[in-house]
Amino acid sequence: MSTSSQSYPMSGGDDQHSYIHNSSYQKAGIDGVQEKARQYILENLDLLNMNPNLSTFTIADFGCSIGPNTFHAVQNIIDIVKLKHLKESQEDSRVAPLEFQVYFNDLPNNDFNTLFRTQPPSSKQEYFSVGVPGSFYGRVLPRNSIHIGNTSFTTHWLSKVPEEVCDKNSLAWNKNYIHCNNLIEEVTEAYKVQFEKDMGVFLKARAEELVPGGLMITLGQCLPDGVAMYETWSGIVKDTIGDCLQDMATLGVTTEEKIEMFNLPVYFPQVSELKGAIEQNIRFTIEMMEIVSHPLEAVQLSNNFITSMYRAILSTVIERHFGGSVVDELFRQFAKKLSEHPIDFEKCKKQMVYHIVLKRK
Amino acid sequence: MSTSSQSYPMSGGDDQHSYIHNSSYQKAGIDGVQEKARQYILENLDLLNMNPNLSTFTIADFGCSIGPNTFHAVQNIIDIVKLKHLKESQEDSRVAPLEFQVYFNDLPNNDFNTLFRTQPPSSKQEYFSVGVPGSFYGRVLPRNSIHIGNTSFTTHWLSKVPEEVCDKNSLAWNKNYIHCNNLIEEVTEAYKVQFEKDMGVFLKARAEELVPGGLMITLGQCLPDGVAMYETWSGIVKDTIGDCLQDMATLGVTTEEKIEMFNLPVYFPQVSELKGAIEQNIRFTIEMMEIVSHPLEAVQLSNNFITSMYRAILSTVIERHFGGSVVDELFRQFAKKLSEHPIDFEKCKKQMVYHIVLKRK
Repeated sequence: MSTSSQSYPMSGGDDQHSYIHNSSYQKAGIDGVQEKARQYILENLDLLNMNPNLSTFTIADFGCSIGPNTFHAVQNIIDIVKLKHLKESQEDSRVAPLEFQVYFNDLPNNDFNTLFRTQPPSSKQEYFSVGVPGSFYGRVLPRNSIHIGNTSFTTHWLSKVPEEVCDKNSLAWNKNYIHCNNLIEEVTEAYKVQFEKDMGVFLKARAEELVPGGLMITLGQCLPDGVAMYETWSGIVKDTIGDCLQDMATLGVTTEEKIEMFNLPVYFPQVSELKGAIEQNIRFTIEMMEIVSHPLEAVQLSNNFITSMYRAILSTVIERHFGGSVVDELFRQFAKKLSEHPIDFEKCKKQMVYHIVLKRK
Repeated sequence: MSTSSQSYPMSGGDDQHSYIHNSSYQKAGIDGVQEKARQYILENLDLLNMNPNLSTFTIADFGCSIGPNTFHAVQNIIDIVKLKHLKESQEDSRVAPLEFQVYFNDLPNNDFNTLFRTQPPSSKQEYFSVGVPGSFYGRVLPRNSIHIGNTSFTTHWLSKVPEEVCDKNSLAWNKNYIHCNNLIEEVTEAYKVQFEKDMGVFLKARAEELVPGGLMITLGQCLPDGVAMYETWSGIVKDTIGDCLQDMATLGVTTEEKIEMFNLPVYFPQVSELKGAIEQNIRFTIEMMEIVSHPLEAVQLSNNFITSMYRAILSTVIERHFGGSVVDELFRQFAKKLSEHPIDFEKCKKQMVYHIVLKRK
């Protein structure tokens, strides 16, 4: 029951290049905002009151990847729901003991084996785990089956690359850039249209899966209005990876044509675009929306950290297009380029973290 | 929330040695009895009547392995529930449209990646899939969350080998046999006690997970009363594998001591033992219990078929104890021994297939 979409999970397994060992930047983003979500749930979640006989509380993490961040995120939610339930049980003796079930969702080619095998042993005492294979750009769960949904740093991955950006005859052709760096207005527009469409599909599906009164917690990165990707450090990283591919084409390791056909299905909206896309949905009320700095935004990240982080994120999509043999060489060259021309984080414009709590009408 | 247990899934992946390509004997067993289960559900399932507003019908397959048998089993159940729902919708306009959710359960080290990737595309139109990692000898799902549970050829895998059968000082020491072939009475008794305990735990957990009125369909193999494993072809197969290990010990590939410490956590009860174990449970009524021949029981299986089937079933547990390097050589020797001394299926005593439908009180 999922729509077909391009499918590039984070690097699986648990070796040095895996997402497991290279996702601390994302974790810092989650840690930075979790307190507000906890506070909101504690003060406003009325599902428990509404259903005094509720026996199972269900949580879904959409785009969970392989951990450990997903385990932290759901544990945070469970802890606060338990606390609220305990408070309400004391006030109302009708409240039944609660069991928790957590749905870990990601693409069918996500490494669920590693997800299941690396789950903290303690979590088995806390909740029943299930894995849900399927693109979140479509329904993956039954109607009215989830109490709290969560997604962290996922919806910048679009369901697909807009076709025109690979079309040499289109005004929206992205030349030999490999991502939407906002240098070509028509490219930005094509990506923006795809983002808005995908966000609409995402929220429509979640609205069907959540129970009335259920919460959808959405965390991600965006750009301040007026800031372009090429001005941010992560935009510079992707442009530099593109430059390395060009160098490899010159050496005959890949070809110019292959690079022209390659674009990342990734888009970071500006704040006002994001707000517009969220407000378009009529099935949720916006309970909380805050735009904050990433806790590590001002930190001068080491070159090794940057290389490992982007290798874990991008190697699947690069491998699929260019073949597995280029990945090692590409990130070797990238590391070399970074050491020759380190990114000056002070001079970069900043991306922001958005943190939204929606409530199902 | 699962109990710890020894964990030996079927061979993963989809190469020539995988369970995917070597599970047709089990499929024949499922096909042989499914018509009666269909008939029972069609005539007796009253869940739909009891819950006219039911929006999601949930099915769980416990010990699903990696397919394709699990996909056939759940599709059979869905087809018949849909048919019944359609009939009742026509009689009663209050009946709501139904969505299906299927919980595929197996041990956490089962190859869920292959399970998800080999799911028939058509199934995505029929139901929402989730994977449930955890031993079915314990709770793996919330209370009252499943309408129909199924398990096919799984509960002969015990939660563990009874300790005394590996203890040289015990009367129940199994010498250098590698399974319960019923040649030593005390060994049989030790395995039987473990089987009864495990079946009790299995049914207790399922009783909590199923809704009142929910069905548990259980399919497996047993022995007619008075028949010993060493008299059946599958008993002879395991004794022959034990003989091959002995030969390999003589050649120094493994050791006598290692073999003495190795026993399969597998027990096939006699019919009366099975009935006793089922009847002990007070939370289910026995709606149907039939003991039939396996459709392939009288067929002279080819040596290749037998070798591939037992390699897919046993290689994980053998690898864990003896190391990965012995598996190829062991099954090469086994194939050789089989070709020198083919099993005379006509002379073997027959195992039986049991097929039980339980209803949650």
